Amino acid sequence: MNTKDVIVLTGAGQLGMAIVRRIAYGNKIIVADWKIENAEAISKTLVEAGFDVIPFKVDISSRESILTLIRVAQKEGEVSMLVNAAGLSPSQSTKEHILQVDLYGTSVLLEEFGKVIKKGGTGVTISSQSGYRMPALTADEDRLLATTPTEELLQLKMLQSENIRDTLHAYQIAKRCNGKRVMAEAVKWGERGARINSISPGIIVTPLALDEFNGSRGDFYKNMFAKSPAGRPGIADEVANVAELLMSEKGAFITGSDFLIDGGATASYFYGSLQPERN
Amino acid sequence: MNTKDVIVLTGAGQLGMAIVRRIAYGNKIIVADWKIENAEAISKTLVEAGFDVIPFKVDISSRESILTLIRVAQKEGEVSMLVNAAGLSPSQSTKEHILQVDLYGTSVLLEEFGKVIKKGGTGVTISSQSGYRMPALTADEDRLLATTPTEELLQLKMLQSENIRDTLHAYQIAKRCNGKRVMAEAVKWGERGARINSISPGIIVTPLALDEFNGSRGDFYKNMFAKSPAGRPGIADEVANVAELLMSEKGAFITGSDFLIDGGATASYFYGSLQPERN
Amino acid sequence: MNTKDVIVLTGAGQLGMAIVRRIAYGNKIIVADWKIENAEAISKTLVEAGFDVIPFKVDISSRESILTLIRVAQKEGEVSMLVNAAGLSPSQSTKEHILQVDLYGTSVLLEEFGKVIKKGGTGVTISSQSGYRMPALTADEDRLLATTPTEELLQLKMLQSENIRDTLHAYQIAKRCNGKRVMAEAVKWGERGARINSISPGIIVTPLALDEFNGSRGDFYKNMFAKSPAGRPGIADEVANVAELLMSEKGAFITGSDFLIDGGATASYFYGSLQPERN
Amino acid sequence: MNTKDVIVLTGAGQLGMAIVRRIAYGNKIIVADWKIENAEAISKTLVEAGFDVIPFKVDISSRESILTLIRVAQKEGEVSMLVNAAGLSPSQSTKEHILQVDLYGTSVLLEEFGKVIKKGGTGVTISSQSGYRMPALTADEDRLLATTPTEELLQLKMLQSENIRDTLHAYQIAKRCNGKRVMAEAVKWGERGARINSISPGIIVTPLALDEFNGSRGDFYKNMFAKSPAGRPGIADEVANVAELLMSEKGAFITGSDFLIDGGATASYFYGSLQPERN
Repeated sequence: MNTKDVIVLTGAGQLGMAIVRRIAYGNKIIVADWKIENAEAISKTLVEAGFDVIPFKVDISSRESILTLIRVAQKEGEVSMLVNAAGLSPSQSTKEHILQVDLYGTSVLLEEFGKVIKKGGTGVTISSQSGYRMPALTADEDRLLATTPTEELLQLKMLQSENIRDTLHAYQIAKRCNGKRVMAEAVKWGERGARINSISPGIIVTPLALDEFNGSRGDFYKNMFAKSPAGRPGIADEVANVAELLMSEKGAFITGSDFLIDGGATASYFYGSLQPERN
Repeated sequence: MNTKDVIVLTGAGQLGMAIVRRIAYGNKIIVADWKIENAEAISKTLVEAGFDVIPFKVDISSRESILTLIRVAQKEGEVSMLVNAAGLSPSQSTKEHILQVDLYGTSVLLEEFGKVIKKGGTGVTISSQSGYRMPALTADEDRLLATTPTEELLQLKMLQSENIRDTLHAYQIAKRCNGKRVMAEAVKWGERGARINSISPGIIVTPLALDEFNGSRGDFYKNMFAKSPAGRPGIADEVANVAELLMSEKGAFITGSDFLIDGGATASYFYGSLQPERN
Repeated sequence: MNTKDVIVLTGAGQLGMAIVRRIAYGNKIIVADWKIENAEAISKTLVEAGFDVIPFKVDISSRESILTLIRVAQKEGEVSMLVNAAGLSPSQSTKEHILQVDLYGTSVLLEEFGKVIKKGGTGVTISSQSGYRMPALTADEDRLLATTPTEELLQLKMLQSENIRDTLHAYQIAKRCNGKRVMAEAVKWGERGARINSISPGIIVTPLALDEFNGSRGDFYKNMFAKSPAGRPGIADEVANVAELLMSEKGAFITGSDFLIDGGATASYFYGSLQPERN
Repeated sequence: MNTKDVIVLTGAGQLGMAIVRRIAYGNKIIVADWKIENAEAISKTLVEAGFDVIPFKVDISSRESILTLIRVAQKEGEVSMLVNAAGLSPSQSTKEHILQVDLYGTSVLLEEFGKVIKKGGTGVTISSQSGYRMPALTADEDRLLATTPTEELLQLKMLQSENIRDTLHAYQIAKRCNGKRVMAEAVKWGERGARINSISPGIIVTPLALDEFNGSRGDFYKNMFAKSPAGRPGIADEVANVAELLMSEKGAFITGSDFLIDGGATASYFYGSLQPERN
């Protein structure tokens, strides 16, 4: 029984690791990150927990880099699962870079893994509650985000710099696009008997996030948690509970969907005490 | 240890029963339905499977009837869970009746149970993939559906007969409203430490559904399944997998959300071979 | 994606059905029973719930009948799972028949399915809490039950009629043997990358059981439930919770084990108020 | 919603942490260990993952220390769960110390938490596959281990130094005793509507275990894994899968049981290629 399936994690962080811990027993994991140090750090923790892991450097904004990742993965066995937790946050980068990684990169990743995913395989990509706070796009705009060929995506008029207010807007539209690409890709993955979904988490505690809660914007965060129904931020293992359902046979009838897990912050943003003032 | 919690199921069918089987061990179940025969039939099956069940007649389009249900439930113990699977389908009724039951009735049900739900309790209401196929409403319309006081809901201009094309439209807007009420109620349920979510299933096999698949519209259904990514209709137990997550401690960070489980039919409707012809 | 895996259920009852409902989505099920009417009744319920089922007549006390079942199953696809819920109870039969079905038949079933089970496949056989109430056998006796070639099993001296007190004793020793065969078979199934475990349930409610609780021995049962820690009989879905873990990837490190789920009745039998009087 | 339940973890290591990550969302955790540095290290990781944790120093071989732990826990809320992963291994200590901690200490821990556990609460104690490799004790010996008052346990003749061969024997008999105490305690915990079970893991990878695999006895371990059905050691998250079932409502009918999760090593030890030579 030497052959193992291969599970690819893009984006080496606590969230991706918590998901992989639920689904990768006995298989091979490739942990890929833009920073090889991140990939190595997560790999080390997983190896010390008994997993069989290869760290790898990838730039998901480059199709060539994604194709290299896939070749490396396929050398180890059939690719049965993709967990994409890579992405830039609005405070980390520029509008252009966010669109290049979070929107274009994710689209290419879903497209290329959809061409090689094992029969019966599954994928999940981490989106964000932010996508739920953006005003509705028109049906035509949604369709453009879903179906424009990946190499033409960044030429869409709606994605040109003059139409994107700021990094938060870039991030929101990237996450909206992720959801639409997941729907469109679900059709293609389905032709291989595979499934692809997304998860939109609220704020999840990580060592980095904890630094922010205890930093200068700490009161902002504490107010947000206090005013959301859950009254607290989320835990990576709670997101992993959702991913585990989506990626196992228990979720065999779920594909092309997005799952919001945010402690009710979105509900409170629209209809509770987190509502922005309206004029 | 005589005291049991009470789990209320409204809508006595295969879907509600599959959910209740996952969450009601050792507790008291009230199975409520508009037709007492339905409530009694499901109760019989559950009793024969070892559950402790009381059948009850309810009309969820009547606040008084809902309040009676709650009084009966509370006599048995604290109400810890609500599973709402009641509702009329587009082919069963008139526009007016659908709005009265599926839109107004569900809204009142969520409101009234939200006033009595046990600390840490959970609820789930069954919506439908149909809500995903409707064109986007404006942000104002969404807000009206979410926040209009229940007794004024049916007076909304957008819900008047001249603005509702047909029973399918009535059904879709009712399901859209359900999702919005769930968000708004999540804020209120959260004040009691409770959570409320919805599930939007695609076509799920039941004895009744099977009759339809084998009936005059059988080819329509067979085509739909063949062209959806899953290639088959869903199973009530697969919906129960989602409900179990939402209603257990594993879903403690999920509230105010909707979960689409449709075998990718919605994805195919928008971006696959189930697309209606576009002009 | 036409090829389906095949899941074989031997013993068409509520318990087997509850397990199959958790694991067979989208696959082919063969429901095999000594009475074809039972197989057909359970198949009907499963078909009406959306499963793809073939009823089949099998006599698990006959190797030939088991081999025919396997041939039929393999025509449909690879056999990925075995759920064995077949067996005679002490009140239903003679000592000889119980040994032939529950001891020899189960041993042959595990042996033959172990030769064809798909790589990564899993099996579970339903044993009973009764096996836990028998005095310990010697290590040599245990080894004989575990390793004697199946065709010689019923010739073991310890299994001859003069050494078996009554049908309960036959039943207990059969269940003890099941546990030992599961351990020995786990080694062989492991060579195919497959796993096999057993579950020992306490008293589980079914329509038949309910008749007994309400019959002449009703007080006996009510006393037993009242004096066990759970204070109630079990529910088939609770046994299915255990089977689901054992048969999914979540149980990938579990093989050759037995899981007792009896509401604590065994604990109470040894150390609580269900203790028989000791002289 | 200020009141949280309290979950007590005794034994601050990877296994206990993996379990706690599955069950403690939104509650208070007390991480207690003989070495406060261990408690603090695990607490730090859990805090960085979003949990609410208090590290605490405990010596489970002292009833007084256990009672202090309980008092501290109760100040924070009701104690709803106990996860006991404390214990000495055969290579770490003397026969006497192993009996004092693993046998007497665990017995007292289960006894004292059984007096305060919340209605509906659950406990799990980590035992070991080692308990399965010991020859059967007599029914009388089992009963003595199960029911002797805790303060008299270490005076049992069978536990005197001249009757214990070595530290492995001490360890095995301690684990056997754990299983019996769990059964006897299940009766008492049941009176409070609470449940208690044990898990017997095989070899689980941790940073410490990994050092051993790569050390001078590495070949011994590699041989053991290669010859067990799973072909690999276990992962803490796989044990957590079992614990999650036992401690949630899904395991409501399970109490007084032990669950062996060892990759089939025990099966192979008795009936496969891990069998010791027999003369």
